[in-house]
Amino acid sequence: MSATGSRFVTITEVGTRDGFQAEKEQISVADKVAVIDALIDAGLRSVEATSFVSPRALPQLADAADVMAQVQRKPGVKLAVLVPNARGAERAAAAKADVMVGFISASESHCKTNLNKTIDEAIADFAQVVPIANQWGIQMHGGLATAFGCPFEGDVPINNILKIVGAYHAHGIRRIGFGDTTGMATPPVVTRTVEAVRNKFPDVQIALHFHNTRGVGLANVMNGLQLGVLEYESSIAGLGGCPFAPGATGNICTEDLVYLLHECGYETGIDLDKLILVAKEVEKIVGRQLPGQMMKAGPRLKLMSTASVRTAVG
Amino acid sequence: MSATGSRFVTITEVGTRDGFQAEKEQISVADKVAVIDALIDAGLRSVEATSFVSPRALPQLADAADVMAQVQRKPGVKLAVLVPNARGAERAAAAKADVMVGFISASESHCKTNLNKTIDEAIADFAQVVPIANQWGIQMHGGLATAFGCPFEGDVPINNILKIVGAYHAHGIRRIGFGDTTGMATPPVVTRTVEAVRNKFPDVQIALHFHNTRGVGLANVMNGLQLGVLEYESSIAGLGGCPFAPGATGNICTEDLVYLLHECGYETGIDLDKLILVAKEVEKIVGRQLPGQMMKAGPRLKLMSTASVRTAVG
Repeated sequence: MSATGSRFVTITEVGTRDGFQAEKEQISVADKVAVIDALIDAGLRSVEATSFVSPRALPQLADAADVMAQVQRKPGVKLAVLVPNARGAERAAAAKADVMVGFISASESHCKTNLNKTIDEAIADFAQVVPIANQWGIQMHGGLATAFGCPFEGDVPINNILKIVGAYHAHGIRRIGFGDTTGMATPPVVTRTVEAVRNKFPDVQIALHFHNTRGVGLANVMNGLQLGVLEYESSIAGLGGCPFAPGATGNICTEDLVYLLHECGYETGIDLDKLILVAKEVEKIVGRQLPGQMMKAGPRLKLMSTASVRTAVG
Repeated sequence: MSATGSRFVTITEVGTRDGFQAEKEQISVADKVAVIDALIDAGLRSVEATSFVSPRALPQLADAADVMAQVQRKPGVKLAVLVPNARGAERAAAAKADVMVGFISASESHCKTNLNKTIDEAIADFAQVVPIANQWGIQMHGGLATAFGCPFEGDVPINNILKIVGAYHAHGIRRIGFGDTTGMATPPVVTRTVEAVRNKFPDVQIALHFHNTRGVGLANVMNGLQLGVLEYESSIAGLGGCPFAPGATGNICTEDLVYLLHECGYETGIDLDKLILVAKEVEKIVGRQLPGQMMKAGPRLKLMSTASVRTAVG
């Protein structure tokens, strides 16, 4: 375990996109902007702020342009947005996004259900994004959904993954996120996926995006660190969910991830105490308890008085 | 990561003790017995069934003898019970426990708060257990509370741990559980504790007992596996809690742990499908949602129909 190293891990906050899009109640633009501003103030330097998908398909994010217009921009902070096609890219460029992120499902049936396209069609549509991003000088990242399993198909063919990564790579994209959309990632599945991608595309920078649907999200991070992956995507307070698993948690939780990384000797540039305050605000905004644990338990070495309570034995 | 090995990991279920003792509502003897019987039927071969502490101090477990009398005994299944002193040991022997487990806090202030003793006094009291266990031919295990941190003191002195382990060892005990009572374990803390114990007592079999209070319970298991520790204690459905962290989860969850281990190529002898059914029963018994994730999400490869629902994008 490289648990005592002193390396830097990059965290991209995705709760503001992957989390807010899953909320049934519409979150106001003001609340979304306040959360993003607070995250940046806590030290996040990469935030997936929203998604320029069809407002008809995803009304929760129909306010994407307003959110982008109101967030306080800071030097060194990158606001990323999802873009599925040319139309999304035009809107993202107009909103002065720092990064455009493609997303294509590694499973045909999920791609069809989620995007109403085949994988090849999704690849072709993303190709139309490229000249727009280049014209505006906007960085591009690639994203894969259901990279570690599909709820309709099970394990996804590694060739699908390599085809999508290859398409991104051919467009000059070198930072690619692998999304565990419904929480099917396990250490061996992640290991074989990362190794296959590295083997064919050694210059690709891999980011891992885990959901904690089956409780093993941070166990997967431990395995990712062991593989030398130093970039993760996570959600403040554990926002996000999965329509297939009622009561299940969503994305891995940013503040719990930061706690684990700091304890293991990694740097993130993030102030954990501030982050916990943001998580508590997010709970108030969505109006229910969220899965994050650090915001409930508090820092590891925040000591109690022995007078406070008699513990249960054991 | 030794994630592709095919070794056997022993799991001791502790929810029936560590979990039920933390419930405010008294759980009936019939429900406790039904859960233990079902766990054994699912393949658990080591169950910490109850605790022979003072019924005045812990009324939730005042039914310890009744529970032990009614559980269906099976060859190869060991029912373990906590015993703090000679009086507890006499009761445990009368109840035909298979294993008596000592428990001593590694922190002076927690020992005082929890047991109303100094560590030295707790060690002396446990010494009175030994002849009783020997007389009845009952196996003994050692247990340490707050082994990875104390909510009153912070990090615990490694010398306290070595003193307690040394006392158990001198009594011939070779299986010792290290309890993360309030969820303060982190990979580096566990690594240095395991290494210090192994260095001084190479013949001690270490069992790790993690709580998920700060979300990193299964991350700690990944590190434990990396260290070669092949014995863990966990709670069905994630039963258990911590009086210092309202809303925080309790022990690591047995069925989530079994899922992780099986996916990583370890054997446990446990039927995960049956275990998930037990977890759902436990939720009904305590009358609230518990933290376990597998029982909500279902098996990784339980596939859905694409007709079921349109997923959120990403």
